[in-house]
Amino acid sequence: MTIAASRPVTAVRHTAAVPSAPVRELDGVTRTAVVGPLALEAGGKLPEVTLAYETWGTLDADGGNAVLIQHALTGSAHAARGDSDEDGWWDGLIGPGRTIDTDRFFVVSINIVGGCNGSTGPASPAPDGRPWGSRFPFITLRDAAAAEARLADRLGIRQWFAVVGGSMGGARALEWAATFPERVRKCAVIAVGAHSTAEQIALAQAQTLAIRQDPDFRDGDYYDGAAPESGLALARRIAHISYRSEAELEARFSRKAQDGEQPLNAASLAERGRYQVESYLDHQGAKLVRRFDANSYIALTEALMSHDVGRGRGGVEAALADSPVEFFIAAVETDRLYLPVQSAVLAAALPGEVPVHHIASAIGHDGFLTEAEQLGALLKRTLFS
Amino acid sequence: MTIAASRPVTAVRHTAAVPSAPVRELDGVTRTAVVGPLALEAGGKLPEVTLAYETWGTLDADGGNAVLIQHALTGSAHAARGDSDEDGWWDGLIGPGRTIDTDRFFVVSINIVGGCNGSTGPASPAPDGRPWGSRFPFITLRDAAAAEARLADRLGIRQWFAVVGGSMGGARALEWAATFPERVRKCAVIAVGAHSTAEQIALAQAQTLAIRQDPDFRDGDYYDGAAPESGLALARRIAHISYRSEAELEARFSRKAQDGEQPLNAASLAERGRYQVESYLDHQGAKLVRRFDANSYIALTEALMSHDVGRGRGGVEAALADSPVEFFIAAVETDRLYLPVQSAVLAAALPGEVPVHHIASAIGHDGFLTEAEQLGALLKRTLFS
Repeated sequence: MTIAASRPVTAVRHTAAVPSAPVRELDGVTRTAVVGPLALEAGGKLPEVTLAYETWGTLDADGGNAVLIQHALTGSAHAARGDSDEDGWWDGLIGPGRTIDTDRFFVVSINIVGGCNGSTGPASPAPDGRPWGSRFPFITLRDAAAAEARLADRLGIRQWFAVVGGSMGGARALEWAATFPERVRKCAVIAVGAHSTAEQIALAQAQTLAIRQDPDFRDGDYYDGAAPESGLALARRIAHISYRSEAELEARFSRKAQDGEQPLNAASLAERGRYQVESYLDHQGAKLVRRFDANSYIALTEALMSHDVGRGRGGVEAALADSPVEFFIAAVETDRLYLPVQSAVLAAALPGEVPVHHIASAIGHDGFLTEAEQLGALLKRTLFS
Repeated sequence: MTIAASRPVTAVRHTAAVPSAPVRELDGVTRTAVVGPLALEAGGKLPEVTLAYETWGTLDADGGNAVLIQHALTGSAHAARGDSDEDGWWDGLIGPGRTIDTDRFFVVSINIVGGCNGSTGPASPAPDGRPWGSRFPFITLRDAAAAEARLADRLGIRQWFAVVGGSMGGARALEWAATFPERVRKCAVIAVGAHSTAEQIALAQAQTLAIRQDPDFRDGDYYDGAAPESGLALARRIAHISYRSEAELEARFSRKAQDGEQPLNAASLAERGRYQVESYLDHQGAKLVRRFDANSYIALTEALMSHDVGRGRGGVEAALADSPVEFFIAAVETDRLYLPVQSAVLAAALPGEVPVHHIASAIGHDGFLTEAEQLGALLKRTLFS
């Protein structure tokens, strides 16, 4: 296994700190590690897996202050700004003086295998030098945890102080806790349940079909031509509607027309103007297309469809009944994709009395991102007290 | 205007009835009427509109017993079995001895203009003899009511005893009452609000894009080749998820694998087996593709997006404030597409104290169809007492 910095480590972040402090890596800068071959739960194999990751802070001598932050479906390892020029997706939760205090903890975030932000995924070269494309094997969140455990070994982390994630990141955190209970002291599972439900699978299928039915998809082997952007953008629209509450969409957009457009006009069906909410979703789709690979979207969506912490373990309750891990469970009150009741079912399956914390937000599922500071306050009173 | 029977009227339904009873048309058999040119709200024009319709029972001498039944998005005029061999979609509500008693009422149901079950729609020939396709003009529910009023004239119906519909059919009923208040005594608006909301528009956009992005769609001019079946089936999947409650999908399918298939297998992303809920939605899509035209799906979805009874009338309240119509408003308790609160907002905008009746059903929006007898009991106590 090798670890390479994506840019030279030329600065120490706290230049005014104790002179004898060890030189450390830049915070919030992507590095990669090759963690070797990976035999997969569904029977496939990746002959060599590279994981992209970022870190913040410094690992204690005893390795006891490491926190793993797991990103969601289209996220990346850039959870916090650190020394970079780019905002992180959980800056309100992670940073100096924040709940997950990078002056105290050694924080790690890893791009999931199958993704497209530096880790091995469908766009990566297969052994023959061509992109994996349609040949990329089926991966599960359990496979992802297995690969990440190797990176933890390499970083000298025997046990995480905590593994924390929301949405698919929460499912990844839960799988870590169930797969390696001796390596996880505390685990925060936010805005996701113990397994994907029929509705979540149904919505996921619609999204993957939207991509597969794009003529540019060409069965997944499109890297020598146009990417299936229309299909990916449609998938994102479907997903984004489910990430937001009905009330939020109505309050923001109601049935207003997009500026300068006429949803009712004299033209034929082919030329209708848009409502604002259509323009908004067009924008969400276009934004994702610029930063995400369609095959990765399928691979990770299907990995999330496979989410079931009880699979092969006698069911959810049996999988968690004897867990030594200290759990934090939270749901967004208005989440209509990962319903709070699903978090309650998960909490009930855990040993002891585990409460479900509620994130107050009007916007729905995405509240786990937008309410990072509120979530931080809840975690401060619990796992990070 | 001409009226043609789709098959010869050779039988009288109640052969044992009073010998002097007038010979009447067959019940539940599609006929068509040409109602002339139609200038459209959005500025377009249809030079000649044919409406397909069915009737049940006999119109009273004073024309006071006519009931109009409005179908939903992919429905047809075949609301009840009548003399046909095919079940109707509201048999539990309409028929001899049912709440909408065809021995008492003259019941009419009309395929909406833009549809594909006999009325003029995108698949119909334009004046040049080729299908309208992409040239089909934008229609609204108000246009549809205008066309239907001409058919009512032809049938000798000056005022409907009641206009009744659910989902898009409810929106059609509401538009009838608002556009022709003097022609509607009573109106039942079931499982739909006063206007389409941001979320309903957003879900509709995803569905129309699913069709438009099918390579077989060819901008809507596909009638000389393959139909955009994959796109229409995807649209239906998206819609069907919204028609059903999360709880119903979970109770029926959870995350069970389809018989003989492996959602987790060794194959590549391209060859994964399905979960049961995916197979179920594939089936829903395939069923619709066999009976519905993709352009009609777009035309009617966009007509429904345009639904706003307050448009051009000073808003919803002003549009309905002085309505002489007796309204019945009902919502399905678990409907997550047309939320009960939207029915409550509509009821509050009506003059007087109008209650919202609740249809008890675990399955969501489609409860307005599956709970036809329960709905019939509610209507029996109110409009049809």
